[in-house]
Amino acid sequence: MPVNLTAPDPASLLPVPGVRLGVAMAGVRKANRRDLTVIALDEGAAVAGVFTTNRFCAAPVQVCREHLAAGAAVRALVINTGNANAGTGADGLARARQTCEQLAGLVGCRPEQVLPFSTGVIMETLPVDRIAAGLPQALAALRDDGWGEAALGIMTTDTLPKAASRRIHLGGVPVTLSGISKGAGMIRPNMATMLGFIATDANIAPALLQPLVREAADASFNRITIDGDTSTNDCFLLIASRRAAHAEITALDGADAQALRAALISLAQELAQAIVRDGEGATKFIAITVAGGRDEAECRLAAYAIAHSPLVKTAFFASDPNLGRILAAVGYAGIADLDQGLIDLHLDDVHVVARGGRRPEYREEDGQRVMKQSEISVRVDLNRGAAAATVWTCDLSHDYVTINADYRS
Amino acid sequence: MPVNLTAPDPASLLPVPGVRLGVAMAGVRKANRRDLTVIALDEGAAVAGVFTTNRFCAAPVQVCREHLAAGAAVRALVINTGNANAGTGADGLARARQTCEQLAGLVGCRPEQVLPFSTGVIMETLPVDRIAAGLPQALAALRDDGWGEAALGIMTTDTLPKAASRRIHLGGVPVTLSGISKGAGMIRPNMATMLGFIATDANIAPALLQPLVREAADASFNRITIDGDTSTNDCFLLIASRRAAHAEITALDGADAQALRAALISLAQELAQAIVRDGEGATKFIAITVAGGRDEAECRLAAYAIAHSPLVKTAFFASDPNLGRILAAVGYAGIADLDQGLIDLHLDDVHVVARGGRRPEYREEDGQRVMKQSEISVRVDLNRGAAAATVWTCDLSHDYVTINADYRS
Repeated sequence: MPVNLTAPDPASLLPVPGVRLGVAMAGVRKANRRDLTVIALDEGAAVAGVFTTNRFCAAPVQVCREHLAAGAAVRALVINTGNANAGTGADGLARARQTCEQLAGLVGCRPEQVLPFSTGVIMETLPVDRIAAGLPQALAALRDDGWGEAALGIMTTDTLPKAASRRIHLGGVPVTLSGISKGAGMIRPNMATMLGFIATDANIAPALLQPLVREAADASFNRITIDGDTSTNDCFLLIASRRAAHAEITALDGADAQALRAALISLAQELAQAIVRDGEGATKFIAITVAGGRDEAECRLAAYAIAHSPLVKTAFFASDPNLGRILAAVGYAGIADLDQGLIDLHLDDVHVVARGGRRPEYREEDGQRVMKQSEISVRVDLNRGAAAATVWTCDLSHDYVTINADYRS
Repeated sequence: MPVNLTAPDPASLLPVPGVRLGVAMAGVRKANRRDLTVIALDEGAAVAGVFTTNRFCAAPVQVCREHLAAGAAVRALVINTGNANAGTGADGLARARQTCEQLAGLVGCRPEQVLPFSTGVIMETLPVDRIAAGLPQALAALRDDGWGEAALGIMTTDTLPKAASRRIHLGGVPVTLSGISKGAGMIRPNMATMLGFIATDANIAPALLQPLVREAADASFNRITIDGDTSTNDCFLLIASRRAAHAEITALDGADAQALRAALISLAQELAQAIVRDGEGATKFIAITVAGGRDEAECRLAAYAIAHSPLVKTAFFASDPNLGRILAAVGYAGIADLDQGLIDLHLDDVHVVARGGRRPEYREEDGQRVMKQSEISVRVDLNRGAAAATVWTCDLSHDYVTINADYRS
């Protein structure tokens, strides 16, 4: 059961001029399932992305990087579920390229103008024939109000589609941002999430997209973790169709750029948090802030140690304020010279630990009350500096084990 | 259910001259449970230990370090379960010292000659009064054949006691090594395990104990992981009563020293592996070897990434050869410049992946056959160097979640 997450209201998803989306059932792994999505971009669109740092990155990730590096104008994205095309060696690379060639032939562009994405089981052969056979159906379905369908089309073990929009005004002109994401398991993005796509019609200089997508990823998808497993297929893409009639944004420090940046980060955070809320087996949504660090890196280290600890995660599942497990995780996070005698711990508004020890005033029933909530904030103060970092995660439940023990069956 | 582990045969546990063990029921956390163990050492014994690297280390660990650093001859160890005396601040330190004072008064030595150990729930106040009241009972029970009782006395969520002995001959003189350990959860030792004690009557120069215990820990307790959580209370202690009548060992490179070293490592590995076999919820025992690395550190990094991946662990639980998850874990382990196109993967004798891709000859039923075994070896070849490392771990099952969601209730 997702944590305080519902399917997006179709009326809330706004078309982005210059961007059309279509979905098909190609039978990649199972029949009668939306498993093939095409996103078509009008001429003039600019695209930037961030990709998994997993050294065992999937074939489509390698092809995406090549095509973006080649600098040809991107005209289409093709996304399949059911098969990650990872751990497939040279044959997998050839099949990712064939997918691009097939779609390029149908839309009338060069293969380098197509970006391929795959998600699903690792180490199985991508059925290019079935994907090619499904492409005409996806192209026939292309619509500018296809965001809801596309959110359904990229789901794997997600229980709900993830999509959202923002509307801002730049120079008095309405500008739209819409995005979709998927997640569920193997989620500890490092550069980006499993799959996330945001498009806007903002008229922004193409050179500014890469710093923007990097900053948005660092503030959103790079702050979430479900199981600590960094996927082979993570990618987060930012598309600007540049169709809005405001003056072109040519620098990131102006008022328009800052308004766009704020809307982008807000949208990316909503999509990233939706992945955690729909994490495999999740029953709680937990925001972990580590403050008072010497730098952000050590705060992130401690926050991730807490977020990844199976003992902390099972305690949240059980609503058991066994909070010493949080201290233990901070202690082994790898922060040099950490002085346990300085540490404070809050659970929401409950002050549990002061100067490294349980406060005499702390009452178990107060911790219990917070642990029973579906949304919980944990705050650790290292009290040795001014830096802070927040990550979002979920608990570890029986359903996580069930889902991942049964995934392929 | 422990994996291929049974309670030790009492006849196999050999007394170590100069070392006596006694157990009491002190009611530290619950009544009618062996929860207090004393190990008394005759004059002349030497002791060395390695302790957790968790910065949030427990009060008894801090006191142990102080007492060993002070250099006084150790005469007694006191171990309680039910309460870890960690996350307890200055009050916890005072209580660990009081425990030493109480025992010192009873056996007639100074408090610095006593080493305290605690294991159990974190962040609760140590009931020193109940421990003090139980000490006379533990002292009355001291026996040189008390190893089996002591193994029972230090258990927490362990389902079986862990104890073993070795007998060697040095200069024609029989020499004994006996040891006990406990584990079960919060197991990712980094310097030592939750609790491990080995004693020998070998006549060895005290200065040689520290390098020996370090080497033995690195070859045994520092190679295991259950859930990746490094405990606040880990310690592994080596005791030499020095009573055996062979010529004193004064250097580590002689034949006697090498025989002692080999027996010590073998015993430490048996005790460490017993902890994994009795890991919380374990149904499989898995040896993970990463070979062909540039150095041992990168092999260990990859082996631990595999061993800690919840997706890999649940696949083992399900006997599902979803082996791409192993490749993904190698990919995100953090090895710089790793070339996925060089990687080989074997599951026992089954060659699954060659040059980064699934081998055409690999058949799912072969992987399935191995995954169903209770003992499984995984071998990853990075094919970029000559170094190798092995770690031992278990799977992640529903019972792990159940045990850790219910621990305190």
